[in-house]
Amino acid sequence: MKVIKPIGLIRTPFTSLKDMPIQPKGAQEIMGKVEVHNEYKEGLEDLSGFSHIYLLYQFHLSTKVQLKVIPFMDSVLRGIFATRSPLRPNHIGLSIVTLVEQKSDHLIIQGADMIDQTPLLDIKPYIEAFDSVSDSKSGWMKHSQEAVCFKRSDDRFIE
Amino acid sequence: MKVIKPIGLIRTPFTSLKDMPIQPKGAQEIMGKVEVHNEYKEGLEDLSGFSHIYLLYQFHLSTKVQLKVIPFMDSVLRGIFATRSPLRPNHIGLSIVTLVEQKSDHLIIQGADMIDQTPLLDIKPYIEAFDSVSDSKSGWMKHSQEAVCFKRSDDRFIE
Repeated sequence: MKVIKPIGLIRTPFTSLKDMPIQPKGAQEIMGKVEVHNEYKEGLEDLSGFSHIYLLYQFHLSTKVQLKVIPFMDSVLRGIFATRSPLRPNHIGLSIVTLVEQKSDHLIIQGADMIDQTPLLDIKPYIEAFDSVSDSKSGWMKHSQEAVCFKRSDDRFIE
Repeated sequence: MKVIKPIGLIRTPFTSLKDMPIQPKGAQEIMGKVEVHNEYKEGLEDLSGFSHIYLLYQFHLSTKVQLKVIPFMDSVLRGIFATRSPLRPNHIGLSIVTLVEQKSDHLIIQGADMIDQTPLLDIKPYIEAFDSVSDSKSGWMKHSQEAVCFKRSDDRFIE
């Protein structure tokens, strides 16, 4: 057991889960702001040279855990760890977004697919030499990136 | 504030932080086992079709937080969020590993770059249509993937 403490807030245009993009690929035009609490702002230094960052955040509107879910891009029940659904144990979300600008206490991002006021847990640089994946297989997920772009969420993952 | 609870343990051949690979790219031959506690094992279903997964875990040996660090691949102080160092707020680690086999209560992985007995927080599928990044810029990190492969850790991030 460990206590985690948000380090800031993610601000986006989305105030309702309905009709939101389901992934950053479906939110490529959507600007957002990553506000970091004052005590952590020194940690943002040197980010500006990176074009992409990982945001780790809390799915704070989803409180229950469900081990099998029907993902947005599918029609059958899947194990939660084979999906990106919010109903996972620990409710931690992960998005790769484009870093547009680094300021002293906030970041401007593009590809914001979270609801406004999402609690931020961590920021990590996307480093090609660490993170690039070639020849991957995506299991049950047969849809194209284009289909992901047009898919919108509904309220299946909130109580 | 939120309490997080490990969902399992990552088992690897590394029992000391010294001389470990610093990233999965430097651990491509290293096999590991992701043991999931019984109450969560149903959530592993449907993972077998994925070639790569994200593991989120606790840097449980690093207890202090430092907002500026000298990363393994660099020689100057950098903001912690521009690095992958364990000394970050919330101490959450992220690795993309190859999924070799899915069993009922564990996974066999390749690319294990964590220390043995690392507490597991989440497993997510790597989905190309969500996660592929093209044309990224990696800021201060100028080294090649080859250099990353040969770099080994030291004890700078433990007390």
